[in-house]
Amino acid sequence: MEEAIKLDTRLNCELISIGNELLIGKVVNTNASWLADKLTKLGVAVKRITVIGDDLDEISSCIREALSRKPSLIIMTGGLGPTYDDKTLEGLAIALGLKLTVHPEALEMVKRKYETMGESLTDARIKMAKMPEGAIPLHNPLGTAPAAKISCESTIIYALPGVPREMEAIFNEAISKEISLYSGFKIAEHSFRIVGVMESALAPIISKVKEQYPEVYVKSHPKGTEEKPIIHVYLNAFHRDGNIAKRIVLEAAEKLISLIEDSYGKVVYPLENSNA
Amino acid sequence: MEEAIKLDTRLNCELISIGNELLIGKVVNTNASWLADKLTKLGVAVKRITVIGDDLDEISSCIREALSRKPSLIIMTGGLGPTYDDKTLEGLAIALGLKLTVHPEALEMVKRKYETMGESLTDARIKMAKMPEGAIPLHNPLGTAPAAKISCESTIIYALPGVPREMEAIFNEAISKEISLYSGFKIAEHSFRIVGVMESALAPIISKVKEQYPEVYVKSHPKGTEEKPIIHVYLNAFHRDGNIAKRIVLEAAEKLISLIEDSYGKVVYPLENSNA
Repeated sequence: MEEAIKLDTRLNCELISIGNELLIGKVVNTNASWLADKLTKLGVAVKRITVIGDDLDEISSCIREALSRKPSLIIMTGGLGPTYDDKTLEGLAIALGLKLTVHPEALEMVKRKYETMGESLTDARIKMAKMPEGAIPLHNPLGTAPAAKISCESTIIYALPGVPREMEAIFNEAISKEISLYSGFKIAEHSFRIVGVMESALAPIISKVKEQYPEVYVKSHPKGTEEKPIIHVYLNAFHRDGNIAKRIVLEAAEKLISLIEDSYGKVVYPLENSNA
Repeated sequence: MEEAIKLDTRLNCELISIGNELLIGKVVNTNASWLADKLTKLGVAVKRITVIGDDLDEISSCIREALSRKPSLIIMTGGLGPTYDDKTLEGLAIALGLKLTVHPEALEMVKRKYETMGESLTDARIKMAKMPEGAIPLHNPLGTAPAAKISCESTIIYALPGVPREMEAIFNEAISKEISLYSGFKIAEHSFRIVGVMESALAPIISKVKEQYPEVYVKSHPKGTEEKPIIHVYLNAFHRDGNIAKRIVLEAAEKLISLIEDSYGKVVYPLENSNA
């Protein structure tokens, strides 16, 4: 198919989530799913999400491992605050073999923030302005710790705060536009619900459609049981031309629906709940 | 401190979550946080959570990377179903250099399940009984796909379904007991809330307590803003003797509270919301 999407030509990204609270199950990693959703909609392929603790060795080796896979982007969240266990930028400096220094512009951001509160700089506050040499600080509109951006060979690395509203604000304000400039891919999605067909009976039908539309991602989510099956089906496709993406994904969905209804009659319904 | 907990003597675990739906942000990885919480309470240290897509190369290389770090346990979730993109056990076989064969006992489990529904075996259903040679199938009380257990050198690997209620049932029935037999560590936890002290002002106080109690994990979660600060503080410690763990964590918490209140007066309150 001439219009087939070469997935390799999409920007790809790894997410690294830092924080012991994620590893002890106190916090659900909604930052990663929020970013994954945003990035997917921007046409970026998220290839891996890694969660590690507040540990310098873990952080630096995890970054090195990610860099060795040469993703277009690495987005890190967590570990930018003032406390002893906020070690992201120190770990980043180690991974990149760079010095960690107080960035004058970042220090200015932190200082200004505390001045408006009638507070002065302390070691813990200056710590938030320490970045690997060459990093660019990004203004944090809702918090104190600046985010950071730095390149390593062909990979752009962003380090964002772990507090969700701060992370989201910085992504929306500064990063989303940058990525969409480079990405160029549009996503098209389609979802529906199948009632009364077992996932194991659906499997060969989905495989047939996948053979015909290899560039379309098809995922079945069993929501009932094999005995009382309700299956949510989600399809997506990416293309530089959003209309072509839409057409391909709709064609694949219609093919899938007609094959299912040929065997089982009227079993396909719209999905009320969008969380397919 | 003679009672100091050598964290290295605790069992450690890596979680591998498999599924494109996690990488496109359609599904939040609650399986990982559920398992992390359970494992932590069993005294196990979760060191890393990796999320990868339904891709054979990704799955097998991710398992090999995890094995190279020699964790006591690897728990995988997702990718055991009947559809084309369920590739966990094939990826596991490749990673371990083992043949993927139909396991007679697993096949019996699958067959029995479908017989009670008046259904016969198909390729898609037999697929769920294919496991790496030497794997032990684990009964899935709420679903069709058996889970699998296999050892590789000093690491025990469990592959569980991705459907949360099936994953949880198998963990609770079969795995939790096994782990608690080997673990031997007890966790003690303590949480409280600090109102009106900025996280950046708290940072040096927490550092002081950490120096005195290096074996206690202390995490501050900013819930307000730096201007109107509310901070949830969480402490934990592990010990073979649960009472010692409790004593250590309470001592550290009391030290922390008294240092904060020496500087700021009455600012520490109980945590109504347990999600510290």
